Amino acid sequence: MRFNVRVTVQAAADTPRVETRQQSQLLALLRDEGPLAKVELGERLELPRARLATEIAKLFEWNLVESGGPAASRGGRRSTLVKLADDLRFLAADIGATSIGVAVTDARCEVLAHIVEDYDIRKGPVSVLERLTQLSGKVLGEVTGRVIGAGVGLPGPVSFRDGMPVAPPIMPGWDRFPVRDRLASAWGCPVTVDNDVNVMALGERHAGVARSLNELIFVKVGTGIGCGIVLGGRVYRGVAGTAGDIGHIKLDDYGPACACGEVGCLEAYFGGAALARDALTLARSGRSTFLADLLGHKGELSARDVASAASAGDFAAANLVREGGRRLGHVVASLVSFLNPGMVVIGGGVSRLGHQLLAEVRSAVYRRSLPLATGNLPIVLSELGEMAGVIGAAWSATDHAFAATGSGAVG
Amino acid sequence: MRFNVRVTVQAAADTPRVETRQQSQLLALLRDEGPLAKVELGERLELPRARLATEIAKLFEWNLVESGGPAASRGGRRSTLVKLADDLRFLAADIGATSIGVAVTDARCEVLAHIVEDYDIRKGPVSVLERLTQLSGKVLGEVTGRVIGAGVGLPGPVSFRDGMPVAPPIMPGWDRFPVRDRLASAWGCPVTVDNDVNVMALGERHAGVARSLNELIFVKVGTGIGCGIVLGGRVYRGVAGTAGDIGHIKLDDYGPACACGEVGCLEAYFGGAALARDALTLARSGRSTFLADLLGHKGELSARDVASAASAGDFAAANLVREGGRRLGHVVASLVSFLNPGMVVIGGGVSRLGHQLLAEVRSAVYRRSLPLATGNLPIVLSELGEMAGVIGAAWSATDHAFAATGSGAVG
Repeated sequence: MRFNVRVTVQAAADTPRVETRQQSQLLALLRDEGPLAKVELGERLELPRARLATEIAKLFEWNLVESGGPAASRGGRRSTLVKLADDLRFLAADIGATSIGVAVTDARCEVLAHIVEDYDIRKGPVSVLERLTQLSGKVLGEVTGRVIGAGVGLPGPVSFRDGMPVAPPIMPGWDRFPVRDRLASAWGCPVTVDNDVNVMALGERHAGVARSLNELIFVKVGTGIGCGIVLGGRVYRGVAGTAGDIGHIKLDDYGPACACGEVGCLEAYFGGAALARDALTLARSGRSTFLADLLGHKGELSARDVASAASAGDFAAANLVREGGRRLGHVVASLVSFLNPGMVVIGGGVSRLGHQLLAEVRSAVYRRSLPLATGNLPIVLSELGEMAGVIGAAWSATDHAFAATGSGAVG
Repeated sequence: MRFNVRVTVQAAADTPRVETRQQSQLLALLRDEGPLAKVELGERLELPRARLATEIAKLFEWNLVESGGPAASRGGRRSTLVKLADDLRFLAADIGATSIGVAVTDARCEVLAHIVEDYDIRKGPVSVLERLTQLSGKVLGEVTGRVIGAGVGLPGPVSFRDGMPVAPPIMPGWDRFPVRDRLASAWGCPVTVDNDVNVMALGERHAGVARSLNELIFVKVGTGIGCGIVLGGRVYRGVAGTAGDIGHIKLDDYGPACACGEVGCLEAYFGGAALARDALTLARSGRSTFLADLLGHKGELSARDVASAASAGDFAAANLVREGGRRLGHVVASLVSFLNPGMVVIGGGVSRLGHQLLAEVRSAVYRRSLPLATGNLPIVLSELGEMAGVIGAAWSATDHAFAATGSGAVG
């Protein structure tokens, strides 16, 4: 599949590889901070003028950067602004348990076009990836430019190196399916595949509430519960790539059954499916008239309905949120004691429960973790909401595209 | 205080600073691998022959390295072995809640002399540091050489940058006491101060069971319970330096009182004091005749007595170990799910409980963490035992001494 009308997909052979660490740093700076004067780029990278000129000339030659006109004068000779080429495009996909989101961004990860629709991950990889390429065709139709890379987030454990999911609990049929390679050949550009929570953490760090923080954890509460760990500004994956998998921390040996096959997991208490199950119980038992009415009306209940009920003041629903938030809070408190991060960000669909949830988590963490670890610790809601995934996926794609040869090059 | 008889303490002004990253890498290689042929050093650092010669010449000039004679021939011209100077010495102190250990090591962190004696940390910093310098005088009397650095481990949260404890729960009077600066002026050499568990983790990684592993957690169960986290081969400290503080993870809002002022902490269930308390209950209630006999004999009971009783087959004592191991195992299982490390090492005084404890922790982790995270995960006992602290403290001191100017230099 190629998009040749208004959007060009730059074939691997046509895209020059970023050759040096300096080129890679220049591109990352321009992505993270926008147009910069040549003289400032030289200062930031501590590069002598001649060397800087050579490196930038290469980037111009490959059409990765372009001139942004004269820079504001700082006295002395006027410098020229350099910016990332306006027509660079990245595809970014956020595949959730029940939805597919896909966006086209520019090289600064600004979303230019975005579609999201409900789609069940359990339809399997062939069906989901086919729908994804259809949607990407649509969204690419809304923009012009050259697509030079793509990033994808998946709702389960992913081998980042191999670009495929590995034993994902809620994705039947996806185990070791070569997602990266299939999409790379469909889209004709390099693709990075990562766990959705890692990708959301990167999104918040690049453009959201955690901007420029180097140590943070992003807790996603959605259909699944997971955690993205950013250390030293990079996603920390662990030795087998499963770091952050807190949804299946077992809270009780005799707790409710979980989709992973175990019992008593955090996710079995507070994931989307667990909330829907508990909502049904509240509705049927008559303990929540709000939810009973909704059930009569819609015929089913979801985690979102719990959120609506709780914010409408329904006591039983609010109690569900409190209970769940308390359990999540206990787990987060342990992580905070253990890792001493600079920020905890809470996101994902269930985070629509919003400030009630946040209050419970905060209360548990501030009560249970060491004062030193919580003294300057913001615990906040995601700022990007449902855009965190695509923005992070785009960031992951640019990171790959801008890396110097050897560590993952353009093409 | 200076030791001028057989041991020289090299004054700050006399010790040249390691100038370049290459010099620093050469010293670290020689520490970690022992004498190496020049030609091999060049290959390992990918340094051209002339540059290597310049860098090594500097190290010779500063008496940091010396010749180790001709290297084994690999065909072609004979190369010369280079090794760290035989007379380099480091002081390494492991201050525990109830003991002071101090060692002199060579530059490869081999212990040349070692003293350990009981001493209560609650006597306060002036008393403890005075006793430490007396003991270091003794131990230095047993060796010859030049002391060029020292490392110290303390049983509480430490600001590594400031070289002092910060709000340590079991160290009354130590808060913000300038340990590093006091010892540096007493010893006349640079000193690094770190949390004891971080230091033990480094010891196991340098010379123990975790040799050359880059991702590991070291869990210490002693008077206190803590955890050292090694990521990318370095100690991970968190944003406020409290990472790894798992002893005060709260297991129960209505649990036993803890020395930190809270209730229900892991340490309040399974630290040394908690075990001694429970042992007393078992002895007095007659549920353990073994412990009752010991109590009659000694007038008091310690965590060690629980270990003896359990290995002698005392049912009630073995049960204490099982219960505690299970609680510790639950916490470790969460950490494994979260961080996906390459190894878990269990050490500290209570780890004398040995294989019974190990069995409980393993059972909890293998049952409660994701199969992917535990598939290749060794959970093992410390290999260095009570030497882990001094060896790690020595490693920390060499790391500082061998660092190039700017990131912590010799002198």
